[in-house]
Amino acid sequence: MKKGSRYGLHRSLEPKGVLPQPAWRVDNSMEVWSNEILIDVETLNIDSASFRQIREEAGDDEERIGMIMQRIVKERGKHHNPVTGSGGMLIGHVAEIGEDLRDRSQLQAGDRIATLVSLSLTPLVIEEILHVNKKTGQVDIRGKAILFESGLYAKLSDDMPLKISLAVLDVCGAPAQTRKLVQPGQTVAVLGAFGKSGLLVLKQARKNLGIRGRLIAIDRGEAGCGLLQRLGWADFVLDVDATDPIAVMEAVAAVTNGAMADLTINCVNVSGTEMSCILSTKDEGTVYFFSMATSFAAAALGAEGVGKDVRMLIGSGYTKGHAELALQLVREDPNLYEVFKERYGG
Amino acid sequence: MKKGSRYGLHRSLEPKGVLPQPAWRVDNSMEVWSNEILIDVETLNIDSASFRQIREEAGDDEERIGMIMQRIVKERGKHHNPVTGSGGMLIGHVAEIGEDLRDRSQLQAGDRIATLVSLSLTPLVIEEILHVNKKTGQVDIRGKAILFESGLYAKLSDDMPLKISLAVLDVCGAPAQTRKLVQPGQTVAVLGAFGKSGLLVLKQARKNLGIRGRLIAIDRGEAGCGLLQRLGWADFVLDVDATDPIAVMEAVAAVTNGAMADLTINCVNVSGTEMSCILSTKDEGTVYFFSMATSFAAAALGAEGVGKDVRMLIGSGYTKGHAELALQLVREDPNLYEVFKERYGG
Ligand SMILES: NC(=O)c1ccc[n+]([C@@H]2O[C@H](COP(=O)([O-])OP(=O)(O)OC[C@H]3O[C@@H](n4cnc5c(N)ncnc54)[C@H](OP(=O)(O)O)[C@@H]3O)[C@@H](O)[C@H]2O)c1
Ligand SMILES: NC(=O)c1ccc[n+]([C@@H]2O[C@H](COP(=O)([O-])OP(=O)(O)OC[C@H]3O[C@@H](n4cnc5c(N)ncnc54)[C@H](OP(=O)(O)O)[C@@H]3O)[C@@H](O)[C@H]2O)c1
Repeated sequence: MKKGSRYGLHRSLEPKGVLPQPAWRVDNSMEVWSNEILIDVETLNIDSASFRQIREEAGDDEERIGMIMQRIVKERGKHHNPVTGSGGMLIGHVAEIGEDLRDRSQLQAGDRIATLVSLSLTPLVIEEILHVNKKTGQVDIRGKAILFESGLYAKLSDDMPLKISLAVLDVCGAPAQTRKLVQPGQTVAVLGAFGKSGLLVLKQARKNLGIRGRLIAIDRGEAGCGLLQRLGWADFVLDVDATDPIAVMEAVAAVTNGAMADLTINCVNVSGTEMSCILSTKDEGTVYFFSMATSFAAAALGAEGVGKDVRMLIGSGYTKGHAELALQLVREDPNLYEVFKERYGG
Repeated sequence: MKKGSRYGLHRSLEPKGVLPQPAWRVDNSMEVWSNEILIDVETLNIDSASFRQIREEAGDDEERIGMIMQRIVKERGKHHNPVTGSGGMLIGHVAEIGEDLRDRSQLQAGDRIATLVSLSLTPLVIEEILHVNKKTGQVDIRGKAILFESGLYAKLSDDMPLKISLAVLDVCGAPAQTRKLVQPGQTVAVLGAFGKSGLLVLKQARKNLGIRGRLIAIDRGEAGCGLLQRLGWADFVLDVDATDPIAVMEAVAAVTNGAMADLTINCVNVSGTEMSCILSTKDEGTVYFFSMATSFAAAALGAEGVGKDVRMLIGSGYTKGHAELALQLVREDPNLYEVFKERYGG
């Protein structure tokens, strides 16, 4: 067996020498290098911003969604959406462990794992698309994938249905970062609060705040906002279009008497929401962009354009202990569990 | 006179209702609304990442650079590079002040100002391109521009040559953010240290560190690195290609005995440098992306991909007092002044 780079550089084909995430194309041949793990893939969880774009391109037709996914993987060797730049993650069974990892790894062939690195860097082969779930972005396939030596993963336990774990783990970076950011007494706004990451962020923010501070949930549509009301974690639920910066700003101003948010967390899956976050945040406040539909330039130049002195953070998918924290949040709150079960379970 | 939005929303044509920065096209008709300022433009300072892209597209031909610039402004009503998403800034004389601002504004017709908001949101007309300076990205034109009520600007004083002020003010957000970020005792790495922003960041970082801490300057080429050595602000000057993540990581590891940087500041003007920054930074360290060639997705997913728990900041062009701080840095250090004078002055 050949030994590759810890970070998977040996798989980058175009251009060579870069890491597999920024590479345009990676080598997805399925012979295992000595420090790689081969996975039999069951289900892909396509990143929400990416899946939304693919649905649009496919005119919401299931078969065409599958064809676009096949095309992306054929072209790039990985499910790296060229429009949004984002990936997603997967679950499957360990098929083979490279010889250099066999002693060190906690894994055994047959274990069921979820990868915690993006599909945008994961060598992947889709042999067959079995089922596309348009509502959840989860796609059952027959296929194979490679995990690099540095690649994070979570072993799945039996106490939670698979599809729920998959949904939670896809966005597990968000609540863990929220835990680090939210201070008691703050005013916190969450955009896209009814989505996967939004719900986890909202719940974690409430935990950090306790009874001090104000929590503002923003999403659109009566159904979602009604449920957010009933969940009761937010002090205010605002039904407003996150792509309308003035409407969002005014709605946040109204419930804060013009004081605005100390921290705004963006969990929306559509583009064009940077200014809504910036304008809803206090001077010297913080915006946390978890959304993969965020444009770096729009955020950097937008804040300058309106003279807003805000700290803006790029939402990394990773921080220590993120997977356990997110799963625990769902386990410990029956209402949160119920929502995830209804949406993704079964 | 009609009264417009404080943020310039009334100028957004495509789509309507958004702010002028994210808008694809803005209204660049030069009748002044009652809360706008009209400027006779002398010189545009095209953002470095944008200018580099335009030079490449133009095969480095001066006339074609001008034609591309004209085309961008014709299409979008502003100098908003569709490839990089970035703008730049301008200097000119105040031609007219809308009636609602006349009493409130510190300005008078005839004053010479630099805009401190991006060209990517500034309604602009280029009547004629007078001179393209390929080395500096400064382009003399005959033309007009509009500043919104919320638009920041700096009045220019006579104690510094115009083109030097322009170069410094273009990147003045970077040293001001550096001042807030760098703590004594830290190890700080600056990529693109020999550029406009890089030099200012390096100087400010040294001021914050004093004699405690380690400062690492990274750029490529003997000329630049030699001068960085002679300036003496950095403890280590590394001549390495910022787009090669492994080379950068190894070079930083070598001078820090593997400890890596607490803070990495990206001042490069080319794309593909996200991973170099992430891999050069300690676990739980910070990366400050000032470069407009930064990809949000590459940063967010790249950090996750290698399991690096780093805080990543989007470099806003604005923070309070940024213009004064940057000009003062250059004024107070004769060597820094000398470098800027040689490069941009005259
Ligand atoms: N940084 C990372 O590592 C990372 C990892 C995973 C995901 N993400 C990103 O995080 C974001 C959220 O992901 P997710 O899985 O939580 O998405 P999700 O479950 O699809 O939720 C998105 C939510 O935003 C709402 N929304 C969409 N457009 C809106 C609008 N104009 N106004 C108000 N609300 C709107 C959606 O409502 P509707 O259902 O009504 O549209 C939905 O409730 C995505 O952009 C995704 O790419 C980032
Ligand atoms: N966030 C904001 O609001 C804002 C505002 C203004 C500017 N910016 C951005 O900040 C960045 C720097 O701007 P600037 O005006 O300081 O640029 P600059 O003066 O052109 O400096 C860029 C520096 O990076 C060096 N460099 C380029 N490619 C490199 C590589 N592969 N390896 C090592 N060094 C490399 C350049 O060296 P060579 O000359 O040898 O190429 C140069 O010294 C740009 O991306 C610009 O868009 C951001």
